[in-house]
Amino acid sequence: MINLRPQDIIRKKRDGKELSREEISFFANGVTDGTFSDYQASALLMAIFLNGMSEEEQASLTQEMLHSGEVLNWSEIEKPIADKHSTGGVGDKTSLIIAPLAAVCGVAVPMISGRGLGHTGGTLDKLESIEGYRVRISIEEFGYILKKVGFAMMGQTETIAPADRKLYALRDATSTVEAIPLIVASIMSKKLAAGLQSLVLDVKTGSGAFMQEFEKSKALAEALVNTGNSCGVKTEALITDMNQPLGRAVGHANEIEECILLMRGESDERALPTLELSIELTARMITMSHITDTLDEARELCRQKISSGEVLEKFKCNIEAQGGDPRVCDKPWQLKDLTLKEVRIKSLRSGFVQAVDTREIGFAICEIGGGRIHVEDTIDHAIGFYSEVKLDEEVREGDTLGLLYCRNDEQAEIVSERLLSAYKIREESPIEKRNLIKAVID
Amino acid sequence: MINLRPQDIIRKKRDGKELSREEISFFANGVTDGTFSDYQASALLMAIFLNGMSEEEQASLTQEMLHSGEVLNWSEIEKPIADKHSTGGVGDKTSLIIAPLAAVCGVAVPMISGRGLGHTGGTLDKLESIEGYRVRISIEEFGYILKKVGFAMMGQTETIAPADRKLYALRDATSTVEAIPLIVASIMSKKLAAGLQSLVLDVKTGSGAFMQEFEKSKALAEALVNTGNSCGVKTEALITDMNQPLGRAVGHANEIEECILLMRGESDERALPTLELSIELTARMITMSHITDTLDEARELCRQKISSGEVLEKFKCNIEAQGGDPRVCDKPWQLKDLTLKEVRIKSLRSGFVQAVDTREIGFAICEIGGGRIHVEDTIDHAIGFYSEVKLDEEVREGDTLGLLYCRNDEQAEIVSERLLSAYKIREESPIEKRNLIKAVID
Repeated sequence: MINLRPQDIIRKKRDGKELSREEISFFANGVTDGTFSDYQASALLMAIFLNGMSEEEQASLTQEMLHSGEVLNWSEIEKPIADKHSTGGVGDKTSLIIAPLAAVCGVAVPMISGRGLGHTGGTLDKLESIEGYRVRISIEEFGYILKKVGFAMMGQTETIAPADRKLYALRDATSTVEAIPLIVASIMSKKLAAGLQSLVLDVKTGSGAFMQEFEKSKALAEALVNTGNSCGVKTEALITDMNQPLGRAVGHANEIEECILLMRGESDERALPTLELSIELTARMITMSHITDTLDEARELCRQKISSGEVLEKFKCNIEAQGGDPRVCDKPWQLKDLTLKEVRIKSLRSGFVQAVDTREIGFAICEIGGGRIHVEDTIDHAIGFYSEVKLDEEVREGDTLGLLYCRNDEQAEIVSERLLSAYKIREESPIEKRNLIKAVID
Repeated sequence: MINLRPQDIIRKKRDGKELSREEISFFANGVTDGTFSDYQASALLMAIFLNGMSEEEQASLTQEMLHSGEVLNWSEIEKPIADKHSTGGVGDKTSLIIAPLAAVCGVAVPMISGRGLGHTGGTLDKLESIEGYRVRISIEEFGYILKKVGFAMMGQTETIAPADRKLYALRDATSTVEAIPLIVASIMSKKLAAGLQSLVLDVKTGSGAFMQEFEKSKALAEALVNTGNSCGVKTEALITDMNQPLGRAVGHANEIEECILLMRGESDERALPTLELSIELTARMITMSHITDTLDEARELCRQKISSGEVLEKFKCNIEAQGGDPRVCDKPWQLKDLTLKEVRIKSLRSGFVQAVDTREIGFAICEIGGGRIHVEDTIDHAIGFYSEVKLDEEVREGDTLGLLYCRNDEQAEIVSERLLSAYKIREESPIEKRNLIKAVID
């Protein structure tokens, strides 16, 4: 074997050349064991950002980052293994419905999730709104719950894709986050470490998404799907609308509440897109897993399982197994903190909702503790927001656009204006029909 | 003042935008005091490498790196202050003649030089071939010698352009050395820290140069000249041929010997290009310093001063002031180590010298201790090579192409083949006339 040096690998990518599998392996393992220093890794990250990577390089990087750590193995589970991943949005809470729904349909879902950062929330943080719910569990316990319940939830551990942990921190500090090959390798190395056979991706697009433009979201979705399939995992992606919060609730406890109400069939109509998208994504998971032959059959099966109450029952079992208080499923209103102050955000004019600055809503809630600006921030799970109007809806002056739940007048003062100005009300009536699901990449 | 963050500055350059003076200041000072971490600096260096910098940004970066440390001030010296800088080559020893020559003509030359690395040599290392010569002197002593002798030689100190010291190490480890804006800022921040009024640059081009292609050398020369002038220092550049070693000697002691012989008028004809180039560069320094009105007058003055022996006398004074043994000027042959083995590199064919892989000659001498591969290597000052044929010269089979002075048979074995194959002998006779000075940028 030739003697590889970080400088030479950096130079090659700097000059726009394609890196070999061996060079990519040296990089992924080197950042983990320190033979590729932080400053050398940063220079290479910027070169990748600016000069890109071929499909083959992306697949190699994913595989090498994946194999920089432990890859879970579920050979003793006699069910198809599948999962969903979302690129993140505001009010994006589908994991909480998808995991029990797919489990009820016969798929095992080992869901390794993340924390929220910036305007987007994280599944683990939301689950922690449930009293006692433990997301920091060992891989052994994770496997035990997966086998017993059919799905289990945990955070990334030290041993899963350590190269990604290292690179993610560097990317954040060096403004190299938004490069497709790096995003792909980061997402897929973590997801595939869960030992999946199929994966459905929810790639968000629009004002509250990581990638706001449709074409960029599409490029990301295609790269993710190609890489997943190259790595031997059946992968499909939906590109979905994030030009307004998904459903109604934005926060932590209130998002759990929304999901439970949806599973109970007691939800407000404005929350229905959450259910619709959860069913669409689950339908793909169970069809890829050969539980059903067609997507239509899968959708039908999902609806049945929700109506029958089995899905909520499954969620309850999981809560119990992970140490949480399952009574929340029977009395979701107990998630509400009654000491909170309710603030109505009212429209100053009449017209139609032409745009919602969804990212701004996420950041506003973040600012008063309902999310994380910095990784070390603690979250106030009870703080939250309900978006009470949908895009294109007609509103009159004085109508409620949103409901804010916060701790005090000071918080209300800080964010009311931001929330109000996130809603653009114009006189012109809407012309185009909007779709929640904008494209399918399979 | 807005709160600057490294990530935002990196993002801006990543996206091809122009950085403000304030942002560049934050970077240069941040790498010095640690608020801009190594990995963030590396990412920015790669972004600068790939996206470039405007003339204004280059001048700002130079100024800010310059002012990251001490800038010398010679207001008490009533002479024009000028210096020369070369981008480095093989056998490139003109500083040793230029400094005393310019001093004799009435210019004060505070020469802060570097060490050799890789195939190119360094003035400080060459001077250390002279017994007792001290290049590690304090700034106070440097100033004292400058005033007393008219020129003084020292290495970069901890306090001069600390941002450059930091960035240079990072660039070397991250393959971001060859970017024009970074080269310009590195060279000029160090040079201008010497408190100059004028600067002449010798930008090498060809097989032994840092930039081998003429167009790249020209771009570098133009950027250096523009930046120097923007920073208020009169700057001119010559682009000179480095397609063969300059003069005859390549090494350390033997390069000192060549210079002394030239100053004594006793030199071998093959060494004359060293003198020719030294005079051309000095003529520009003294003309920019208004010692003479025209370059022709300046050249004539230089020749007179060399013939009169005053230049060698000046060199002797400097050696004495810097602790060296000045008798070397009277008996330059004493620089030879008589225990060395002489190896004749003989041509295997007849024809014309069509090309010399000058870089390869530099590296070959380096490999047996006559230079540094790594910064921590020690140098064997006596080891050296004499290039005995010039480009386009006709040679016959068996003629001596070069003379190698090395320690033992093993060393001879290691490099003889490399040295021989550096000379490309072809049957075709040369067609183009070669010029030592290829272009003037002023």
